[in-house]
Parts: sequence; C-alpha cells; structure tokens
Amino acid sequence: MTLAKFDRYIDRHARSFTERLQNLCRMPSVAARGSGMRAIAETVEQSMQRVGIGTRAFRIGSGYPIIYGECGSGPKTFVVYGHYDVQPVGHLSEWSSGPFAATIQDGKLYARGAANKGDLVARLSAVEAYQKSFGKLPVTLRFLVEGEDGLGSPSLYRFTTENADLLKADGCIWDEGSSDTRETPIISLGFKGITFLELRAFGARSDLHSKWGAIVPNPAWRLVQALATITSPKGVITIDGFSSYIAPISEEDTEVLKAIELDEAGLKREFRIGGWVRAMKGHTLVKEHIFGPTCTICGIHTGHTDAGAKTVLPSTAMARLDFRLVPDLTAQIVVRLLREHLDIRGFRDIEIIELGSAPLAKSSAKSRVARAVIEATAEVYGKPPLIYPMDPSSGPVGAVCGVSEPATPVASFGTGYAGSNQHGPDENIRIDDFLKNIKLIGRVIHKLAATRTRPEVAHEDTRPTAPLPKLKHG
Amino acid sequence: MTLAKFDRYIDRHARSFTERLQNLCRMPSVAARGSGMRAIAETVEQSMQRVGIGTRAFRIGSGYPIIYGECGSGPKTFVVYGHYDVQPVGHLSEWSSGPFAATIQDGKLYARGAANKGDLVARLSAVEAYQKSFGKLPVTLRFLVEGEDGLGSPSLYRFTTENADLLKADGCIWDEGSSDTRETPIISLGFKGITFLELRAFGARSDLHSKWGAIVPNPAWRLVQALATITSPKGVITIDGFSSYIAPISEEDTEVLKAIELDEAGLKREFRIGGWVRAMKGHTLVKEHIFGPTCTICGIHTGHTDAGAKTVLPSTAMARLDFRLVPDLTAQIVVRLLREHLDIRGFRDIEIIELGSAPLAKSSAKSRVARAVIEATAEVYGKPPLIYPMDPSSGPVGAVCGVSEPATPVASFGTGYAGSNQHGPDENIRIDDFLKNIKLIGRVIHKLAATRTRPEVAHEDTRPTAPLPKLKHG
Repeated sequence: MTLAKFDRYIDRHARSFTERLQNLCRMPSVAARGSGMRAIAETVEQSMQRVGIGTRAFRIGSGYPIIYGECGSGPKTFVVYGHYDVQPVGHLSEWSSGPFAATIQDGKLYARGAANKGDLVARLSAVEAYQKSFGKLPVTLRFLVEGEDGLGSPSLYRFTTENADLLKADGCIWDEGSSDTRETPIISLGFKGITFLELRAFGARSDLHSKWGAIVPNPAWRLVQALATITSPKGVITIDGFSSYIAPISEEDTEVLKAIELDEAGLKREFRIGGWVRAMKGHTLVKEHIFGPTCTICGIHTGHTDAGAKTVLPSTAMARLDFRLVPDLTAQIVVRLLREHLDIRGFRDIEIIELGSAPLAKSSAKSRVARAVIEATAEVYGKPPLIYPMDPSSGPVGAVCGVSEPATPVASFGTGYAGSNQHGPDENIRIDDFLKNIKLIGRVIHKLAATRTRPEVAHEDTRPTAPLPKLKHG
Repeated sequence: MTLAKFDRYIDRHARSFTERLQNLCRMPSVAARGSGMRAIAETVEQSMQRVGIGTRAFRIGSGYPIIYGECGSGPKTFVVYGHYDVQPVGHLSEWSSGPFAATIQDGKLYARGAANKGDLVARLSAVEAYQKSFGKLPVTLRFLVEGEDGLGSPSLYRFTTENADLLKADGCIWDEGSSDTRETPIISLGFKGITFLELRAFGARSDLHSKWGAIVPNPAWRLVQALATITSPKGVITIDGFSSYIAPISEEDTEVLKAIELDEAGLKREFRIGGWVRAMKGHTLVKEHIFGPTCTICGIHTGHTDAGAKTVLPSTAMARLDFRLVPDLTAQIVVRLLREHLDIRGFRDIEIIELGSAPLAKSSAKSRVARAVIEATAEVYGKPPLIYPMDPSSGPVGAVCGVSEPATPVASFGTGYAGSNQHGPDENIRIDDFLKNIKLIGRVIHKLAATRTRPEVAHEDTRPTAPLPKLKHG
C-alpha cells in the first residue's frame, strides 16, 4: 500500500485544513486568563467527532475539560497528546497583527498557539485523510487533549491517575518539536524533569528607611548570600552531593548525541550573546544542553525596583529557581540536598517553597513509536531528523506515559520551525510545515501498524510525583 | 528678658497655628506626582509674608519653586531649611482616613507630610510669636523652603551653587528629627552621606525559555555572584580597600556616643525582628548605627516574579544599592573601589550606574547653633536631648551648608515622635509636640542672638558633589 492516495487527499484539502487551523487560532484560549476555554473545548471535541473520533469530555473539579477520544482498531494502541490552551500573549504592541487574528502572510500563519494548535489540527486532519483514503485506522489511537498546559496540567495529573487503563499503550506521540535553524526536524524521545522552587528570606515586618541598614538584617543580602553558594561563578551547580546523583550518559545516548550539532553561530546571533556558559562549544555544548542539569534563576524580587530612587531596606526577598532534572535526579533529591546545603551553611532562615515539579521522561530510539516517527520524518522531510534522547524542556509526559509499568515510550515532534518564536510575540508556523506534518502523521500511523519490532524498551523513571498544581509547561 | 510673653502668645494662638498646619496638610504635594505643587508653593510664600518674612521665589528650569525668605537683623545669620513637598502616600487602603484629610484624633494630626509641614509651620509660627512679643528678631533668619526633597533636591543644588552669598551663615537649622521611643528628643548635628547605585548584568536580547539554562549565560546568576563578593554573610562590607577609608571616631564623638542608648527592645518590637546584624547590642550597636558605613540592597529585579510560574531565563538583572557614607568615605571613593573590586574578580560585565549622591555633613556639638538648639530643647522638654553627631539618614545638607568655607554648622530637629510613621501610612504628629516646637524655636532664636561662644567649629566635608538629580531625600 502506498500513501499516494492519502497525500492527494491532503493536497486537495489543504485549504480546508488550513482554515480549520485558522478558526481554532482565532479562539483565544489563554489558560492563565480563563475566558473562552469552554468554547474552545467544545470546538475541539466537535472537530474530533467530525473526523470520526469517539469522544468523552472529562472535567476535574473546576479545571478545563480534557477531551479523550478513540478511533481505529488493531493490535497496537498509541496515545496522542495535545493541548488547546495557549500561553499569555504578552505585550500586544510587540505583535504585528493581533495574536488571535490568525493572519497568513508569506506562507506563515501568525497566532499565539499556532504551533500547538497546528499540531492538534494536523493530527486530526491526518486521521480524516487516512480514513477517507483507506477506511478504518489500522491502529487504535487514544487522543488526550487538555487545556491546562500553561498551568502545569493539574487536571491531567488527576485524570491519568484515575484513568490509568485508558492510557495503556504501546507508545505515545507528544506535541513538542520543530525544525532547527538548519531546517532539520528535531524528534525528542523524552524531556528533562523539572522542579520549580521559590526561596524566601524575611526581615522586618515592613520595608524600612534604609538608614537602618547598619543594624537591621536585610533579607535581600541573606538571599543573595544563600544563592551564591548554590552555583559557582562559572555556572556549575555546587550544592553538596548534587553531582553524585547525576547518572553517567549511557553508551546508546552517547552515540545518539554524536549525531547532534547545534548551530552555534545561528543561535548566538538569534540570542545576541557573545558566547556560551564556560565558553563551551561543539560536542561539549550539545552534551551539556541535552544532558546537563540546570539551576536557573527565573526571577528575583525584593524592595523597590520601580522608576525613581527609593532608599529602602526591604522586608522580604524572593527568588524563583527552576532545576531541570536529568537521570537520576528527582525533585525530591534536589529539595532535600538544597535544604541540607543551606542549613549546613547557616541559612536555616531561608524558606524553600515547592511550586511544582514534573519527572523526567526518556525512552529509547529503538521503540516502535520512535522508529515510526523517525522513519516517517525522514521520508517527508527528505533528510534524517535530529534525535534528542531528552528534550531540554519539560512537560507532563510522566503523567501520561508513567502511569503503568513499563513506562510508555514517547516520541515528540511538531509543526514549528526555528523562527516560530513560540511563547513570544508574532508566534507563527509555516503552512508548508503544517501540511507536511499531516503527511508525516499518516506515515506514522501506517508504520505503527506495520512495523515488526523487538519488545519495547521502557522509559527510565517516568512515574508522576504528587499532583503539581502550579507548574507551567515548559 | 523672659519668654513668658512669647509662650502666652503661643498658648493663645495654639488653635490658629494648628489650623494653619491643617490647611497646609490638606494640600496634596507629592513631588513625585507633581500636581498641586504650584498652589502649595504660593501658599507657603504667602504664609511666610504673613509673618513678616520678605520672600523671593526661585524657579530653576521646570523645577518646583524654592521660596527664599529673610527676616530679622543682628550680627548673626542663620539658615532655616524646610520643604513643602511630601512622599507618595502608598496604599490608600492602609490609611485610617485620607492622607490629606488632616484629621485630628486623640491629639494627633494625621496626614502625609505632617512632620515636615509641622516643622515648617512651627518655625513660621515662632517667627510671628516672637515678633508680636518682642518686635524685630535679634538675628537674621534666611528661610530656604524647597519642594523637591522627595526627588533629590535637584533645584536646590543648582540654587545654592548659584546663590552661595545668600547662604553665608553662622549656622543652619535643619528639619529632620523626632523624639525616640522613650520620649527623648533627638538632635542631629549632621547626616551620613549617601551614594545610590544601580548594578546591571546583561544576557540574551530577550527572556528565553529556561530550557536554555544549561548553556546560555544567566545575568541573574552573574549579578548574584557579583553582589555576594561585596558583603560577607555576616553583613560586613568586603569591598577591597573599603575599610581603609573609614576614619576612626574622634574622641569628642566617642564621648557623645556614650550618652546615646537605643531602645533595643522597643525597636525590635516595632520592626518585629529577632535580633540585630551580627547580634550586636549596647554600645556597639549604637556606634554601628551612627558611625557604621552601610551597603544596603534596596531592590533587585530580574526575570518573572508575578503570580504564576514562568520558567524563564532572564535577559537582564538589576540591583539598587545605597551606601551610607561616614568620614572619610565619599561617593567617588565607593564607586572607584567597587569598580576595581568587581573587575579584579572577573565581573567587568557588571555595569555600575550612579543614580545620585549627597556628601555627609557633620558638625560639632560646640557650635553656636548646636548649643542653642540643645539648650532650648532641654528647657522645653525638661530633659537633655540625645545628640547624634551624625544622623544615619542623608539629605541635601551639603548643598546648603557646604557652599562656603568653612562649612556652616548644622543642627536638626523636628516635630515627630517614635510613632510618627513618617513616609508610611497614618503618618502623624502630636499637636503637643507641634506647639512645644514653636516654643522651642523661640528659645533657639533667643539663644542664637545672645550666646557668646568660641569661634565656630567647621563641618567635615560638606561640599556638594555634582548636581544629583535623582536621589530621594532619606
């Protein structure tokens, strides 16, 4: 069986598929704002039904609906994850046209959420095209489309814990991915874990006149002194015992890493930076990017920082840190080590608040789903994709893929490209990438059914921890 | 000559004086906002004329008027500094009644600026009472009333540079002061200097997804690491060479310090803190409070610190620091030492921006003006005042007292008390303190004319540096 018929269907319906995507992009669905969420959830459910997916909407408490849907049949079952919510739009003045105008210009569709809505519509369009071309799908697909990606997926964590049966699958397709600055598509076989912490120091009951600075303890100094012990000036994490929890990179991953190259010059230009941390480059840089644990200060606030001088002695100081987790680090280990590290240095007064976490997820390039996605991508893009054993970002993959033993292998890819500016102003995808993705997914479906492969290689450590109410996907 | 007649005049006009103060307090004059400034300047000028002061209003560029006024005659001349602007009101919800309602309750007048407007009206009322009781003042008083205390007094610095002749005087009376938690009035014979700096670190051109944290330099970490070298965890300033610029405390000041006691328990309760920096107490605490240099983090901002998790790698990081200067430190020395200190540690990338500065001003307790104020206060309050050789706060004293050689000795006191909550919500003064201050000033005028004393002891280092446009008084 060739896919020529399938491809022709897509070519003939390219305009209709694109319009469906535009319609969805015109529905504002900023999870952090909350308005319009019920409307888009209904539209998503109808779109699924329209392509022959039997759906059921789940609402956990006051959360945004999770649309679960099944279609196809066959010996193998795969979960397809998607989300219909989008990030906040940021400053409107930075957008060339409205973030929900879904304007197409020079072959690019501009909208907040163009990438994740593009992934969702591409996958639904592929289901339609496949069925119209060949009848029933030869595999069972279980769609799981949530609306709280931007909020840390609290409903999803509860849903998957309570409905583990629905998630039993031979593999999972995730919706994070793009091609790089050299037009090579990236496929990720997992994600770093994350734990997001807030550190707080306390002083006087309210901000004081800074004339008291010689004798009243300043929580801003406490926080700075405590933070400075956590990393070295060169950017190495110096928490006691931290490095002993970092697993060596496996031989298989070492091989996979060799094939990856970062477009260092292109990225430096894009970020407008003069160099990388510790002046790394080449293979070392790639290894650090993909397998290096991180401790990022995401924000600090204390005292008066608005325009105009105000000489105050702050009453509190706060820093937000995110740690990206690599094998064998867990959120629990990080928090325990950090607490001990601070205590032993006399910083018992620094409070650590856990804002959320997500375990890492990592699977093999030899899994059925990984092989299907890799091969299909190579066919559609005409070049072998870059394989990331772990994406340096994080998400609720553990909630979906880690509920049963062994963990479900995952492969992630998407409609974005290096210029997509996801989460930023003028977010956009190229219509051509969107249509290519539909074709790609048809081939993935085809290969998932056809491939004969060795027994599945399980994830490493993808069980979810406790429900994580506040952690934003990212 | 006794002052009984003068006191009777005050007692008879207590209500009228209080109403004048209420009227002034009902005029909003937040320098940082700007509205109402012209109206209050006119009212102040009229109030001065009403008590027989010949006035002249100076307006420097688009600044708020400086009202200069002269009255009296005699061999000695004294400058009386005041300001009619007030601090921003902060959160209205924290005020029991409006910040410009000037309500009197339980003998307290509540208003933003009650203290500095109280000082101004008390001084004008004393001039009236003195003249009505005894005719012409026996000394020349030169009033200097500005409206930019909250903005760092940029007009005042230009005015005093261009009108040094008007400021030649035998002494200066400043308007900062209150009684302490034990009802002992505090008189300050100078102020610490100040330099207010902003430190900046730069990373990528915009905030990035924190998945780049392993390889893209994070300016928040740069800033934290740089800051942490500036003080020790115990709160000692560790800038190379810094301590060698701190003059030893003179024998005279050591004697004066011995008489000062801080109400440690009362202040700890008020600030709600468990202890002081380095667990200091007693005499050490007093010495550090009054003669210790400070480096206070007044604010830090970087990345995302609003509600909700956002895992970003910040593009910039900023800290505001104020250094309070003691003899022989200057703003220039601090900035040079800090630059060298950072450079030698590899922090050449950290930018230092000078936001403003004011030199210290410090005079002897033996000056004519100091002795007059100290003796008058003891008479009116029935107990010897606390003498601070230097107030731990700062102000544009150098602009007024440092324009000629030798520098003009200064004495500062005011209508506030320990519960005045200046700059905070429900700022208030006690009517009784206001009336006592009028009586006090009559005695000061009396003593300034009468006292036969040794040659004046000059200030140490009160010359103004360059115009300092942004430094808020404090």
